[in-house]
Amino acid sequence: MSYKIVGTSPIRHDGVEKVTGRAAYGADFSLPGMLYGKVLRSEHAHARIKSIDTSVAAAIEGVLCVVTGDDFPKVSSEGRTVGEAPASIRDAAHNVMARGHARYHGHAIAAVAATSAYIAQQALALIKVEYEPLPHVTNVMEAVAGHVIIDNDLLTNGEKGTGPTNIAGSNLFERGDLGTGFDSADIVLEREYDSGTVHQGYIEPHACVARVIENGQVLLWVSSQGQFAMRDLSADVLGIPASKIRAIPAEIGGGFGGKTTIYLEPVAILMAQKTGRPVKMWMTRDEVFRATGPAPASHIRLKMGITSEGDITAADCDMWFEAGAYAGSAYGAGMMALVAPYDVDTFRIEGFDVLVNKPKSAAYRAPAAPNASHAAESLIDELCKEIDMDPLEFRLRNAARKGTRQASGPAYPEIGMVETVEAAKAHDHYRAKLGPNQGRGVASGWWVNAGGEATAHIVIQPDGRPALVTGRPDIGGSRASQAMILAEELGIDVGDVKPTIGDTDSVGFNMVTGGSSVAYAAGLAVHEATQKLLQVLRERAALIWDIDAAKVEWRDGAAHAKGQDSLSLRDLAEQAGATGGPLAADANVNAQGAAPAFGTHICDVTVDPDTGKVDVLRYTVCQDAGRAIHRAYVEGQFQGGAVQGIGWALNEEYIYNDDGAMENAGFLDYRMPVALDLPMIDTVVVEVPNPKHPYGIRGVGENGIVAPLAAVANAIADATGVRLYSVPMSPPRVQEAIAAHAARHVTNGVTPTRERAPVVGASNRR
Amino acid sequence: MSYKIVGTSPIRHDGVEKVTGRAAYGADFSLPGMLYGKVLRSEHAHARIKSIDTSVAAAIEGVLCVVTGDDFPKVSSEGRTVGEAPASIRDAAHNVMARGHARYHGHAIAAVAATSAYIAQQALALIKVEYEPLPHVTNVMEAVAGHVIIDNDLLTNGEKGTGPTNIAGSNLFERGDLGTGFDSADIVLEREYDSGTVHQGYIEPHACVARVIENGQVLLWVSSQGQFAMRDLSADVLGIPASKIRAIPAEIGGGFGGKTTIYLEPVAILMAQKTGRPVKMWMTRDEVFRATGPAPASHIRLKMGITSEGDITAADCDMWFEAGAYAGSAYGAGMMALVAPYDVDTFRIEGFDVLVNKPKSAAYRAPAAPNASHAAESLIDELCKEIDMDPLEFRLRNAARKGTRQASGPAYPEIGMVETVEAAKAHDHYRAKLGPNQGRGVASGWWVNAGGEATAHIVIQPDGRPALVTGRPDIGGSRASQAMILAEELGIDVGDVKPTIGDTDSVGFNMVTGGSSVAYAAGLAVHEATQKLLQVLRERAALIWDIDAAKVEWRDGAAHAKGQDSLSLRDLAEQAGATGGPLAADANVNAQGAAPAFGTHICDVTVDPDTGKVDVLRYTVCQDAGRAIHRAYVEGQFQGGAVQGIGWALNEEYIYNDDGAMENAGFLDYRMPVALDLPMIDTVVVEVPNPKHPYGIRGVGENGIVAPLAAVANAIADATGVRLYSVPMSPPRVQEAIAAHAARHVTNGVTPTRERAPVVGASNRR
Repeated sequence: MSYKIVGTSPIRHDGVEKVTGRAAYGADFSLPGMLYGKVLRSEHAHARIKSIDTSVAAAIEGVLCVVTGDDFPKVSSEGRTVGEAPASIRDAAHNVMARGHARYHGHAIAAVAATSAYIAQQALALIKVEYEPLPHVTNVMEAVAGHVIIDNDLLTNGEKGTGPTNIAGSNLFERGDLGTGFDSADIVLEREYDSGTVHQGYIEPHACVARVIENGQVLLWVSSQGQFAMRDLSADVLGIPASKIRAIPAEIGGGFGGKTTIYLEPVAILMAQKTGRPVKMWMTRDEVFRATGPAPASHIRLKMGITSEGDITAADCDMWFEAGAYAGSAYGAGMMALVAPYDVDTFRIEGFDVLVNKPKSAAYRAPAAPNASHAAESLIDELCKEIDMDPLEFRLRNAARKGTRQASGPAYPEIGMVETVEAAKAHDHYRAKLGPNQGRGVASGWWVNAGGEATAHIVIQPDGRPALVTGRPDIGGSRASQAMILAEELGIDVGDVKPTIGDTDSVGFNMVTGGSSVAYAAGLAVHEATQKLLQVLRERAALIWDIDAAKVEWRDGAAHAKGQDSLSLRDLAEQAGATGGPLAADANVNAQGAAPAFGTHICDVTVDPDTGKVDVLRYTVCQDAGRAIHRAYVEGQFQGGAVQGIGWALNEEYIYNDDGAMENAGFLDYRMPVALDLPMIDTVVVEVPNPKHPYGIRGVGENGIVAPLAAVANAIADATGVRLYSVPMSPPRVQEAIAAHAARHVTNGVTPTRERAPVVGASNRR
Repeated sequence: MSYKIVGTSPIRHDGVEKVTGRAAYGADFSLPGMLYGKVLRSEHAHARIKSIDTSVAAAIEGVLCVVTGDDFPKVSSEGRTVGEAPASIRDAAHNVMARGHARYHGHAIAAVAATSAYIAQQALALIKVEYEPLPHVTNVMEAVAGHVIIDNDLLTNGEKGTGPTNIAGSNLFERGDLGTGFDSADIVLEREYDSGTVHQGYIEPHACVARVIENGQVLLWVSSQGQFAMRDLSADVLGIPASKIRAIPAEIGGGFGGKTTIYLEPVAILMAQKTGRPVKMWMTRDEVFRATGPAPASHIRLKMGITSEGDITAADCDMWFEAGAYAGSAYGAGMMALVAPYDVDTFRIEGFDVLVNKPKSAAYRAPAAPNASHAAESLIDELCKEIDMDPLEFRLRNAARKGTRQASGPAYPEIGMVETVEAAKAHDHYRAKLGPNQGRGVASGWWVNAGGEATAHIVIQPDGRPALVTGRPDIGGSRASQAMILAEELGIDVGDVKPTIGDTDSVGFNMVTGGSSVAYAAGLAVHEATQKLLQVLRERAALIWDIDAAKVEWRDGAAHAKGQDSLSLRDLAEQAGATGGPLAADANVNAQGAAPAFGTHICDVTVDPDTGKVDVLRYTVCQDAGRAIHRAYVEGQFQGGAVQGIGWALNEEYIYNDDGAMENAGFLDYRMPVALDLPMIDTVVVEVPNPKHPYGIRGVGENGIVAPLAAVANAIADATGVRLYSVPMSPPRVQEAIAAHAARHVTNGVTPTRERAPVVGASNRR
């Protein structure tokens, strides 16, 4: 199949508004008479709230409203599913504003709406909160130990639990006989891996404006990954029908999963209800770090056996993920990710969702998969070293293929794992010369990719150009890719399409922009709507020509039929009234045929042996897109994912003090990589089409972040001979590991490298 | 057919926003960095523009842009049809900003955009325009005489004309032999009628905000009767593709036909293009009067013959309408209206479109029909007096019915003329006692009613409530009537529907809110979309029940099938994802089956014989709605039309001085009736369904203004014995006519009453 537009890289339709600063983000909307809302946040990591006295704050001039948890309706614990993550509405409500207990440093305790942001901020200081501080826990394994209990009512897996616990949920995948599996292995290694808490680090802090009028109708202007999710979650927390809220999607300055849930929105709506005036709220960067959902820290114990020929015989794993202060980390996705790139028949994978006194975790680009792959892909690297096998050959030998059963049960459809490894093998990067203190690592990663509800509404303008309204916020250029599909199908210039995102009253329900699903699902909706439109266009042409519609062919942006002059979109638009009315079509789908994607990364590093500083020298992402619609944005997703993964691998983590307060809640101290820190990330767009999509799209947004943790760790091990088991592998840790390794080599040349994380198992060559 | 919701009067959905002042009208939208635009207007009624020096104005601080006609692109004279009125784009362009000639006092000469409205206004005074004043003409018959020519290039009916003229167009309807017709009459009367220039008097002056970004995309926020018309006309005048403009409909504070065309919009867009900053413009009331389209003044000569039994035998008429400074009055509609309520076989009706030095006329509620009916219904009243016949009996005898051929040719479909006359006859009002100086008049009126393009898009929210997006601005409560149709069909509460109006990028092309077409055409689109939605709902229920969709019945807001618990909209909404995706449906129609409506009015007046002041004592409108969807708003349209007709009949007119400048351009001097001036207008909603509409809707917006001019004139004649032939029948004119009548009665008891308008013919009893 050859395409004219699909696979090219046209200028994005929303580009001019963005580069000129005109695009309106969450804080760029204002209404007359608007108030400014600010949130008072807990200064304790864990405390009982004995009393809140808002009287002084409420009395100062310019303050129109002070709210606490008591002002919110009580909500039942009946949940609903949002995207991949089951979210308890009660938890969401209590996370939005504390009720009786503060569960983390930064937890919202009260909020003020005032005539200026300055007054609101001043008023916060006048709210008197009497706390009873409680012991806190901010480490997953300490929380598992249960010396500090965060929620006395929590029972593990509901009734099944045995008394108070911090384990909010667990799940088990197992298949085959582990004993037999490990018995048939020639090499068995067992290691433990840790990851710190990391944040998505989106540029735009959360922001919204809410207006409520006397009949209860709410206007919610909000920057998010899903105006429908913001509407539905806010409605549930406030106990009002979802249809009362019209949520208008602002432009979004990054989300990466972190803007799929609510924080300020119900607070702004509540204060707008109480004051009758619009309320604008926005977070500072400090608040974003302390109070929005980071990716969970984790502890993973993994044991794996292989034959000396390089076949995986068994895997045994326990993984503990920090849910944060309320249940619901994506630990299940971590369980799925662990051995997803491989054909493994014998395994036991148990996952746990663990409460800690940190902000409730949220999705972050392939949630939980980087943690899991960090473990598996590091251990495989160690195993390959043990049998002296090329790690790409190992991956080819064990690669999952069509029909391979996943750990979660179902067999894979057509997938491209093998093709990504072959692309890495074929890449010049894999043969590039390395110098002193340099090393190379590879790792593969899987991501599930999602589908879900999506809509498309096409309207032909009088000059024949189409306007396209879809319903998922555009984060990574999805308006462009959707316009490209429309243009490809209609045979017109992509610049002639005007794509926009509708609000919740104007388009049907759309899932969040998440799960790498937008190009796939919205693309499917656009494709379906375009087919309907083409049928309308053929019928109109047939009417004008007075022939049968079946005799009309559509190509190159025009209707054609034997013996007739062609009729362009513009021709048909000009005659639309006379032939029956406006030219338009829509589609409303729940896209079910999403297909997983794989990526294989190659990473070269230079390690400064004195400082422990790691520089990425070369980095190549070979990832299966299924089909790249907008090539540059697909490459951008590959690169962006890799960069975030490199940041996670090398520098990023929440640093907590003894009081359970984050000490580095700002971009100066929470060190994300910037352009100067990194080389150009090279990309290979592998295309193994998804047969369930007319263009073969799989989804590319998340996979790129999965492999880098292990790819970097493996490269560091290759460069230094020192294996690190915790991320981030920041200079002090690398320096410490090198020093410890050197010390051990002096005293005992055979002990495996160890670092802060205890290595439970050891090399077990028979 | 019995309905649960149709025919009731629920609270309007947009009511709360409007009564609380939150609804955003044309001037209620602002953007950062916005400029304010003001227009310099001609102080001459007719002049050649020798030069415009903008240099001083452009140089003052805060002025960012000064434009004149030279800054606009030259446009061809290729026209397009907007609603009923053919509009030459060249004329529209020149009316928006004068090119070389000022054709009326108030004509736009230049415009300024500045950082404040004050600076812009000050800058206007610094623009130096050198005029060469030309003779002007502001009276239609003087213009016909042709001593002053407004457009030297104008030829009557194009090539057919004979040299320069002010007659921009003409048409002729004729049937039968006039000589035979008048010969068979027992009574023939001939009279001449005049109407002054009147304005729609909408509360909200024209206003808009335009933003243009570097890629040429235009955002146009505008209060109008049609965001699509604003888009398309602005694009044509500016020579840009329509798809470059996204026009967002503001709420509208009245239009009555006057907001179907462009004035400020292209000027704001042009200045936004030139400055790169948003530009807001709004008119003062003075500008609205001087520079927007009023209803045309007219002169009509009508001769009619009847038998002594009361049968109309012939009608002969010439009607001259003032186009204003550019061609295009609705004179054709006046020709159609003249004898439309009656079965008349023999007639000759010629109409003329005449240029005068006044603002270009625009549509005003049943355009041109009030002028025509003023003539015919007054003359019929005189004829009835001659044969001593009850005027309602006369109307019943001559009434048009299904199959009657209209003057314009086609035969009537099912119509309700007879029913409105019978309703008037049956009304207590017609038997109410009259006191001294009191009189009663009746008159009937016709209006064509239109259809046109309309769209509807229904989206079911997660709680089962529907959002409804249509595309025509809501002036008279159309959101409510559309929501009612949706609610009726779905069997749900009308308050559960959330109706909104989409912008030009989000819905297919919609005709303007005009021609009494919205309830009819958009209602048809809503009905069609609802039928599609019901099919979707039945299919989803069938899927859940695993039965055939044909076995699913929809009633009372739920799906029902034998042996199954019913599934409500909410139930189906909750399972929408699982059953295939969002619940939504749309329709895009060009409604072709609009049907005419008739109204018969009864008016009682008290005339003060000393001052000539006329008070309306009782007023009853009996009008055929086809079907009233929202009863109170239908009654409101009847009442509003009658009130505007009464204002036209009694007080309203443009008063020009010798320089051709309007002297009463404000609501203090242009006297519109207010609530204190009038009694409660009684209404009878006649319902003779339009068979071409599922609910029988005809359209009610315009008809109410047609009959009042003659109804009031006939009542005054009944009260005083004095017949007036010119509207408005203001106190001085009534006083003068009474005095002249009294003087004539003293000298000559038999001369027919005459007033300023010369009576050409006379009573001709054989």
